[in-house]
Amino acid sequence: MERTQYAGLIDESYEGQQVTLFGWVQKRRDLGKLIFIDLRDREGLVQLVFSAANSESALNLAEQMRSEYVIKVSGVVKARSAKEVNPDMKTGKVEIEVSDATILNKSKVPPFDIADGVEASEDLKLKYRYLDLRRPEMQRGLILRSKITQAVHSYFDENGFIDIETPDLTKSTPEGARDYLVPSRIYPGHFYALPQSPQLFKQLLMGAGFDRYYQLARCFRDEDLRGDRQPEFTQIDMETSFMSQHDIMDMTEGLIARVMKNTLNLDVKLPFDRITWQESMDRFGTDQPDLRFGMELKDISDIVKGSSFKVFSGAVENGGQVKGIAVPGGADHYSRKQIDAFTDYIKRFGAKGLAWAKVGADEFSGSVAKFVNDQYNEITTAMDAHEGDLLLFVADRSKVVADSLSYLRVTIAKELNMIDPKKFAFLWIIDWPLFEYDEGDQRWVPAHHPFTMPNEGDEHFLNEGENPYEAHAQSYDIILNGLELGGGSIRIHTRELQEKMLKALGFTPERANAQFGFLLTALDYGFPPHGGLAIGLDRFARLLAGSDNIREVIAFPKNSKATEPMTEAPSPVADKQLEELYLNVTKQDKE
Amino acid sequence: MERTQYAGLIDESYEGQQVTLFGWVQKRRDLGKLIFIDLRDREGLVQLVFSAANSESALNLAEQMRSEYVIKVSGVVKARSAKEVNPDMKTGKVEIEVSDATILNKSKVPPFDIADGVEASEDLKLKYRYLDLRRPEMQRGLILRSKITQAVHSYFDENGFIDIETPDLTKSTPEGARDYLVPSRIYPGHFYALPQSPQLFKQLLMGAGFDRYYQLARCFRDEDLRGDRQPEFTQIDMETSFMSQHDIMDMTEGLIARVMKNTLNLDVKLPFDRITWQESMDRFGTDQPDLRFGMELKDISDIVKGSSFKVFSGAVENGGQVKGIAVPGGADHYSRKQIDAFTDYIKRFGAKGLAWAKVGADEFSGSVAKFVNDQYNEITTAMDAHEGDLLLFVADRSKVVADSLSYLRVTIAKELNMIDPKKFAFLWIIDWPLFEYDEGDQRWVPAHHPFTMPNEGDEHFLNEGENPYEAHAQSYDIILNGLELGGGSIRIHTRELQEKMLKALGFTPERANAQFGFLLTALDYGFPPHGGLAIGLDRFARLLAGSDNIREVIAFPKNSKATEPMTEAPSPVADKQLEELYLNVTKQDKE
Repeated sequence: MERTQYAGLIDESYEGQQVTLFGWVQKRRDLGKLIFIDLRDREGLVQLVFSAANSESALNLAEQMRSEYVIKVSGVVKARSAKEVNPDMKTGKVEIEVSDATILNKSKVPPFDIADGVEASEDLKLKYRYLDLRRPEMQRGLILRSKITQAVHSYFDENGFIDIETPDLTKSTPEGARDYLVPSRIYPGHFYALPQSPQLFKQLLMGAGFDRYYQLARCFRDEDLRGDRQPEFTQIDMETSFMSQHDIMDMTEGLIARVMKNTLNLDVKLPFDRITWQESMDRFGTDQPDLRFGMELKDISDIVKGSSFKVFSGAVENGGQVKGIAVPGGADHYSRKQIDAFTDYIKRFGAKGLAWAKVGADEFSGSVAKFVNDQYNEITTAMDAHEGDLLLFVADRSKVVADSLSYLRVTIAKELNMIDPKKFAFLWIIDWPLFEYDEGDQRWVPAHHPFTMPNEGDEHFLNEGENPYEAHAQSYDIILNGLELGGGSIRIHTRELQEKMLKALGFTPERANAQFGFLLTALDYGFPPHGGLAIGLDRFARLLAGSDNIREVIAFPKNSKATEPMTEAPSPVADKQLEELYLNVTKQDKE
Repeated sequence: MERTQYAGLIDESYEGQQVTLFGWVQKRRDLGKLIFIDLRDREGLVQLVFSAANSESALNLAEQMRSEYVIKVSGVVKARSAKEVNPDMKTGKVEIEVSDATILNKSKVPPFDIADGVEASEDLKLKYRYLDLRRPEMQRGLILRSKITQAVHSYFDENGFIDIETPDLTKSTPEGARDYLVPSRIYPGHFYALPQSPQLFKQLLMGAGFDRYYQLARCFRDEDLRGDRQPEFTQIDMETSFMSQHDIMDMTEGLIARVMKNTLNLDVKLPFDRITWQESMDRFGTDQPDLRFGMELKDISDIVKGSSFKVFSGAVENGGQVKGIAVPGGADHYSRKQIDAFTDYIKRFGAKGLAWAKVGADEFSGSVAKFVNDQYNEITTAMDAHEGDLLLFVADRSKVVADSLSYLRVTIAKELNMIDPKKFAFLWIIDWPLFEYDEGDQRWVPAHHPFTMPNEGDEHFLNEGENPYEAHAQSYDIILNGLELGGGSIRIHTRELQEKMLKALGFTPERANAQFGFLLTALDYGFPPHGGLAIGLDRFARLLAGSDNIREVIAFPKNSKATEPMTEAPSPVADKQLEELYLNVTKQDKE
């Protein structure tokens, strides 16, 4: 019953050989005395030929075969005649003359075609996930993901990292996102929490002297789902001792280069650019810039600060900025109406308006032309603009300018096809602020997390009487194509500094101890300097697979309501199960 | 700040070189003008020498250094004088003359020594787990575990297996062990369950056509803890399509050979013995036999069935057996009192007595000697017994005989040091019964799980009117040194047979659909023949590490009460967290 080879790998090198293949019926063409079947397995398709000349009984069986039947066939590999060669298939030069066949299992008619680009609702595809996963694009996505993890394991192994598992049943620390809880049966009213990340455990592993740790770690966050978010996700997680942030970035670049080579056979150029958070905000208006195209933000505040156009000069007077982007060839492309739509859109960022000008040979036209024509040369030089470009300006406080223009930059680049989808643009953002202000919660929160080390020389900002929020951090994010792929930091390794940090975040000593006492105690016992990084595996796989949806690189994802339509999880449980956990349900959705 | 090499790897090949090392102070000997420090990192120890001649400032700093301080040193590697060479240390021929030193972090005095074989309570060691993990034996255990997982990844990758993650938030199926539940915030009264194993998902991946899957899968069971059990544990999990059980066993043996080679540099002989479940029960009285020693069970029922000793002849008449073991040289070793203690112990298995005889040159002595002396030759031949051996017999129904003698066989082998602790004895047990009777629950349960395929030719036992409990199964367990290392089976791949199987287990069609409807539906759509296996990683690592306790190869284990003394998980949570989950606690342990 041995398989000779995957069906999708039978090429002309097998010509003349007897082969045995297993797979699924993709397509069947019945010409009466001759039946053709495309046999599918995970590696692709091969054409089978059933005829009375080859085997009467196999031909009879082929008459019964239908889509998605599972079959076993044996036969000889023959070259196709020249006019039947299919150059688009790896197996397109050959076919199998079937001399023996078995139907191993039958199939009902599937609820959707097993083919790429199939039209079916997301929930129908999730309900029949095992059928959806048979589609070649889904197979490719998950196989690519497996290639990523193989590259990760071999790279870390070669570099002396130890693969260590951290617990999934751990303590709830209601800081950051919402925890998933797991009730204890042994201790009534007590709960484990599923980890949002292995952060503290990996730091403790450095305290334990393992020096270099990595793990493909499952993480859990009970948050509202949107975009790339799933209730559970996987991190490529690492931590090292006695390494600087640039050592860690170098190590990470080696990992990424290995992954790109082993998955897409791409050689990426190292090192990646490393720019400061401030530079990123200045040039792109975001800390996740997409470098696959230009159209950077330019500051013309100095040029227009004395302008008679009060929108410009007033913004600068009030401590704000005037910045803009030059859309190449945008003068002809964008109508007044489209620009008005942009203006409307950026109101959500707080922008009061969008000033624009079209670049002529020696003057501007458009909404603000009359105010700025006198400075045509200075502005076109500052903006690196050329005849035919469209200039878009926002004059406001820096956050509004950044949010508005970074949105316009990306939106317009997509509309004008300025982005090469085959390009992978990696970039490091370094020198982050240590804290950021959460306008919703009206408080300072860690820009990275509460264990992040201030920049060398910035520790004093955490002292009594100084302003901690001025400190910058030894943290670094890696960006791919305008999305955060991962990030990390050097961590605090002394109790004193960690306590100051928690205080700056508003923790009382009591709360600090209740929540992080075990870490503070650990820092008393010879903790080494350490730092690390985590990369989002799901997103990385999605980007490398060229998928729009993270669900395409997860075998059994949840839908946008955090349910799993196939198994119908979550679901009601037996009363006995709740009794054993000392729980009452206060509200019950019907099943 | 670059490290030259790990401290524990500095040997004579570095002699004369300037090195920079990082690590922990293991031991400090202060001779006034000369201070010796053993520096420790994950690879071992190296001796540092501080002297005024080398560096006055480093010497001054060394005076402040204490156990577990984290330091950085630079210096030249020198050969030790002949009389100071320590042949037990890899670094024992050299020492470092320190010219530059830095204290990177201080340490309080640890609550226990950082040394192998330390005496401290389990909970104290778990509370300071990061210190316990610094001990060399703990480092070795986790590093060995990491080598196992690396071998697993590379082996499966080379053999075309795809690493696919299955969900941790899934559906509660209250069959088998107790599920850990995770309340849903979005659907009041609904719960996810953490997986007891990825069983159904990996079968569905075969249905999806991935052909060869593997995963290092975290599994969860809310059971009372004892011995090797932890609330969460890890499985080396695999599944394949179109392979026979012997193909899968071959594939598994290749994996195990790779692991043994890459971890302990041992070449294991392949293939492993494959014996039937019945043969194992006959020869060893257990389905998890330890093959590192002999002392097999011998059946003398036929010899003694006409005996005047009613205990023997009566047992045979009532459908039972008389079996025994021959303890080599046991005649002198075991006293009457010790044998009485054995007799007492085996009462828990239902044994009414233990008959014994000491083997003389041509006759027996002891409790049953007078009854069996006439059959000296037949019995010594059947028992493969020699002068000086002790024979122990149990006469009862087969289960009592098996339980009693398998206990005595292992206990005595340990007492008499018959077991070579360096030996690794692998064995397959095949041809299991499909069902077994649960005497506690008074019902038939699956010997493996409800998805196991009957033996070829045994399917008919599941038909209406036949006795399903006579069927044997295409399942296989792999045993290492008398412990189940893992097991697997060929699975059912048609809906019809799966429904019969569930019916034989007492499922109504309604309950079968409620619990396994998604699998039954999936089987309608061209499911391939498939099967797989799972190996317990934690136990495998423990056995290879030569540890007695599974906690020694888990970084952050739970204690025997399923709590984690370091983080104090599980713990009470905020009222707001419970409100969001629509839960009330009916009983609250104090914190």
